[in-house]
Amino acid sequence: MTGIVVQNIERADPAVIADLESCGVSTVHEAQGRTGLLASYMRPIYAGARIAGSAVTISAPPGDNWMVHVAIEQLKAGDILVIAPTSPCEDGYFGDLLATSAQARGCKGLIINAGIRDVRDLTEMNFPVWSKAVFAQGTIKASLGSVNVPVICAAAAINPGDVIVADDDGVVVVPREKAAEVAKAAKAREANEADKRARLGAGELGLDMYKMREKLAEMGLKYV
Amino acid sequence: MTGIVVQNIERADPAVIADLESCGVSTVHEAQGRTGLLASYMRPIYAGARIAGSAVTISAPPGDNWMVHVAIEQLKAGDILVIAPTSPCEDGYFGDLLATSAQARGCKGLIINAGIRDVRDLTEMNFPVWSKAVFAQGTIKASLGSVNVPVICAAAAINPGDVIVADDDGVVVVPREKAAEVAKAAKAREANEADKRARLGAGELGLDMYKMREKLAEMGLKYV
Amino acid sequence: MTGIVVQNIERADPAVIADLESCGVSTVHEAQGRTGLLASYMRPIYAGARIAGSAVTISAPPGDNWMVHVAIEQLKAGDILVIAPTSPCEDGYFGDLLATSAQARGCKGLIINAGIRDVRDLTEMNFPVWSKAVFAQGTIKASLGSVNVPVICAAAAINPGDVIVADDDGVVVVPREKAAEVAKAAKAREANEADKRARLGAGELGLDMYKMREKLAEMGLKYV
Amino acid sequence: MTGIVVQNIERADPAVIADLESCGVSTVHEAQGRTGLLASYMRPIYAGARIAGSAVTISAPPGDNWMVHVAIEQLKAGDILVIAPTSPCEDGYFGDLLATSAQARGCKGLIINAGIRDVRDLTEMNFPVWSKAVFAQGTIKASLGSVNVPVICAAAAINPGDVIVADDDGVVVVPREKAAEVAKAAKAREANEADKRARLGAGELGLDMYKMREKLAEMGLKYV
Amino acid sequence: MTGIVVQNIERADPAVIADLESCGVSTVHEAQGRTGLLASYMRPIYAGARIAGSAVTISAPPGDNWMVHVAIEQLKAGDILVIAPTSPCEDGYFGDLLATSAQARGCKGLIINAGIRDVRDLTEMNFPVWSKAVFAQGTIKASLGSVNVPVICAAAAINPGDVIVADDDGVVVVPREKAAEVAKAAKAREANEADKRARLGAGELGLDMYKMREKLAEMGLKYV
Amino acid sequence: MTGIVVQNIERADPAVIADLESCGVSTVHEAQGRTGLLASYMRPIYAGARIAGSAVTISAPPGDNWMVHVAIEQLKAGDILVIAPTSPCEDGYFGDLLATSAQARGCKGLIINAGIRDVRDLTEMNFPVWSKAVFAQGTIKASLGSVNVPVICAAAAINPGDVIVADDDGVVVVPREKAAEVAKAAKAREANEADKRARLGAGELGLDMYKMREKLAEMGLKYV
Repeated sequence: MTGIVVQNIERADPAVIADLESCGVSTVHEAQGRTGLLASYMRPIYAGARIAGSAVTISAPPGDNWMVHVAIEQLKAGDILVIAPTSPCEDGYFGDLLATSAQARGCKGLIINAGIRDVRDLTEMNFPVWSKAVFAQGTIKASLGSVNVPVICAAAAINPGDVIVADDDGVVVVPREKAAEVAKAAKAREANEADKRARLGAGELGLDMYKMREKLAEMGLKYV
Repeated sequence: MTGIVVQNIERADPAVIADLESCGVSTVHEAQGRTGLLASYMRPIYAGARIAGSAVTISAPPGDNWMVHVAIEQLKAGDILVIAPTSPCEDGYFGDLLATSAQARGCKGLIINAGIRDVRDLTEMNFPVWSKAVFAQGTIKASLGSVNVPVICAAAAINPGDVIVADDDGVVVVPREKAAEVAKAAKAREANEADKRARLGAGELGLDMYKMREKLAEMGLKYV
Repeated sequence: MTGIVVQNIERADPAVIADLESCGVSTVHEAQGRTGLLASYMRPIYAGARIAGSAVTISAPPGDNWMVHVAIEQLKAGDILVIAPTSPCEDGYFGDLLATSAQARGCKGLIINAGIRDVRDLTEMNFPVWSKAVFAQGTIKASLGSVNVPVICAAAAINPGDVIVADDDGVVVVPREKAAEVAKAAKAREANEADKRARLGAGELGLDMYKMREKLAEMGLKYV
Repeated sequence: MTGIVVQNIERADPAVIADLESCGVSTVHEAQGRTGLLASYMRPIYAGARIAGSAVTISAPPGDNWMVHVAIEQLKAGDILVIAPTSPCEDGYFGDLLATSAQARGCKGLIINAGIRDVRDLTEMNFPVWSKAVFAQGTIKASLGSVNVPVICAAAAINPGDVIVADDDGVVVVPREKAAEVAKAAKAREANEADKRARLGAGELGLDMYKMREKLAEMGLKYV
Repeated sequence: MTGIVVQNIERADPAVIADLESCGVSTVHEAQGRTGLLASYMRPIYAGARIAGSAVTISAPPGDNWMVHVAIEQLKAGDILVIAPTSPCEDGYFGDLLATSAQARGCKGLIINAGIRDVRDLTEMNFPVWSKAVFAQGTIKASLGSVNVPVICAAAAINPGDVIVADDDGVVVVPREKAAEVAKAAKAREANEADKRARLGAGELGLDMYKMREKLAEMGLKYV
Repeated sequence: MTGIVVQNIERADPAVIADLESCGVSTVHEAQGRTGLLASYMRPIYAGARIAGSAVTISAPPGDNWMVHVAIEQLKAGDILVIAPTSPCEDGYFGDLLATSAQARGCKGLIINAGIRDVRDLTEMNFPVWSKAVFAQGTIKASLGSVNVPVICAAAAINPGDVIVADDDGVVVVPREKAAEVAKAAKAREANEADKRARLGAGELGLDMYKMREKLAEMGLKYV
């Protein structure tokens, strides 16, 4: 079941992706019922980036980045590459040459459950990466993997075409079929938060705003 | 012993707190006999912040941030929130809404032995956080914890009202009763270092300045 | 075999060191056959620094930084300090006073398989450090170690006088005897990459540029 | 999507499960194309156990074991419980009382991406567990999770009714739909290994038995 | 504040200690309100030991075991040594000679937030140890620490004379002042569990025995 | 520099190896000046084994065990295989077939800075392994590595022909050139310990036996 490249994947509506991007990881995660987060060790190589896009997935052997070249051909503008090694690995699968190539195809960034290198170049190129490690260790091109197959990446299940949202808070995946619904819930959540933020900023307590005092007292909270 | 909110805690003298803040974590740690550091995994969400303040502590169940709302009511201007889950957890207990609320009460920042989210917003708000993880994972509001009770947080014992100092070097706690004495020792240490810095910067060797050569020779150090 | 200071070590040609510095960690690592990297947990205390220099090595007891003073006397302009504790340790061996002293001797930076403190000061001084941890924990001056002896540091073997290259991608060591040859290979590699980068940036695929398609088909890659 | 208990799940053929059990984790993992392993941190609480059975899955909140009681009612003889917290957690969800209850229903063992306690009792009961941690930390019963829903557990995707195989080598999951085919491949593999084992045990080299010498020479292997 | 040996510490009643020992870690932890556990990385060097005793504490510098000799003089029959380095360390502070000496004084075992060696000898001597690591790394005798002072050990606060309980589930500390009360609660809990175990073993479900069905339905649990 | 097999390596005197084996890891480590230990994460797959032998080393690509077959041909009776991947990896390079083959050549055991599988079989075969992980993950045979070249393995430098000693305390390497001298020192140390053990077992304190009291008092130790 290795050695497959799925060429035609479905992607979510660009407007939906834009909405998810504007809401960011934490809001999207809440909006889809607190699911879909990748592990907390997936950190951005530089601060301040926020992207969303359709996942083009790579299932790669440990220490072998051959499939990245194969996957780049499958990228469309706005896509996000997702690399999941088949066993734990922190080698540097991806650097500035691959980023140049991916960016030329319109790729918005990379999510990789392994290592990354050429951090300075990627930063200057504004090509954001969320990775498990920064590690220059070179990889080889000897074995096949697959492109656009379902992967488990950093504790999350990702299917090709799912929407990835990534920012300073980490990475979340939204199943393509639910993307529109989640985007709507996320936007609603965001709208709802503006008012709360204003009231809390004015000094109103959450205890009052959310009417928590009675429930807390019932549960036995004691002030001493 | 859970479900307690201690309302009136003693705080250290603001002038003492200001002195500790001006000295920073490493100097304060040395000044109190190399004690009081929190574990090295407690990292700031952005570089350059330095704060000191009185600890308002939260003992929280894993994955439940209800007590944060309760604690915010107990904050006074200049305080620092300290959240210690009762078992290891990296969920995101705290984000921009809670930070808005805490900041409105005069809170200077957060120390949390768990996760944090909305990093971009907190950075823009200048609300510094030292945490174990950045993780968007949402929490619930189902169980009681306690506020202003003694906690163990990231390998350090913290009592409510103790002085927390945090900067790029990490986090240190100074017991309230010793805060004045430690601040004095820290200021003295700092004064003492200026002269040393000048001499070392001029090329004088520590070997000579600290008169180490004889002792090293006695212990058997051999130059070959 | 402890308690030795080797005073006269051979260093690589400054022009070679400059070439290695200009190429950076990832290119140098590739140029010497994908060897010499230190472990990925060795991270810079601030982004953007790139240095190369001759290693002045310290084998230090855990939690004891006495030998750093001894080593500083052995530094020549352009050197890089390398501190390897004899057992795992994350204590803060090095801070702004030692950095001031080392910088006054022309030292370009520090590689330490342990902790570091005074991060803010070191950043302002432009004294870069790659370390295992940021930790203010103070050390003592009670036991001897050695200076300029071979060490194992973060999974790499480093001899005094070897060339260290460090940047945002991590740290790599080049054996002194091979430094000229590796520098030459690294420069060649870099020259070669400019053309590739331009072609990839123009949209040419790596699959075509590297003529991978036939080999992939032979190995059984299937497009579906 | 939380708070669901799926009552009727399909299970694999008992004969197939028995075959998978007899082959063990490593052989089954190979037989299904080197997929399906849970992370290596999932270790048995005692050596020597080997089980296979149908997965009854639990998606549980961190630190809350209420759903375990719900799941036990769904167990049939020969099943294996699989507990996956929704965020990283090492609390002790399961101990001797729950094991007594599960064993009374015919449950063969537990796979849990969290903590376990009462290790001595479980060992005496011959109730094997593969867990992330041994930790006595008590859990609560305050929030809903789900039973018999798809989970991600220790880096593997597990659906209810999938076959779990666990032994001293760790844990592997076989999708129910492929269980028969994988069992067949595993048995074939096992048969094939007996002959190899005999020849290797008699001193024949793998280099000769697998006819590797020519290929290695072609690739450039040099004997010096 | 370093270099202190407190000679006369209060210990708990031996009958209370015996009760706590008979109940074991998990029951005692529950009986004192789910507090007092040491971190889950504290593992026994061999399976099957269960001990309880009064803590004789050591605050030791990293990599320096001098204070262990000092502490052994303070041991009384039935005591348990507790070693807490002042910064993270996994060196082997303790081996068969120290165990021989401690055992000759009646010491029942060791809790150490660092490394241990001579595991085979300690196993043969029936001298149980719970440690962070097994590591032969030798330590020195160069610096003072303190004996019988309060320590933070593996995330728990331990005072000299507190009762330590340790078994296959890990380590828990019971404050001396509460030991009698906790022992009573633990024994009551144990008595209560025998009946539950019998009923669960007979096939009764926890859902029924604890009358959980109604509450779960109220909270919205859905069977599908 | 990859793809080399060094066929004729020098080995230490079998009598010296036997002496080192009889002394065990901790004593040998002390006898050679507290050097040579492999990292503490290198744990035996079963308790009670103690071996010493000459290292036949393998530098292997991550996830590729081809070189193991090549190395087995180089084994002589009494040797120990040492496998060091070129980047961090926990895949299962070695199982029962390779162990059968190695054992048939007289190999005494395996040291591997990666994963291992078929633990139950290896245990029954009395083929001891010290590894970083137990992990069934299969490896491939696609790329060359080298045999009998110097490696860095789990923080230690190992040359082919060096003596490996491994037991329940971990693994230590003794450079071949120093093996005789270290063996002598280890035997002397062992002889010396018997008397100490007897005196300590009879209740004499280390404080007295080693005459530490005066030195401790001088350094300021205070009994209160």
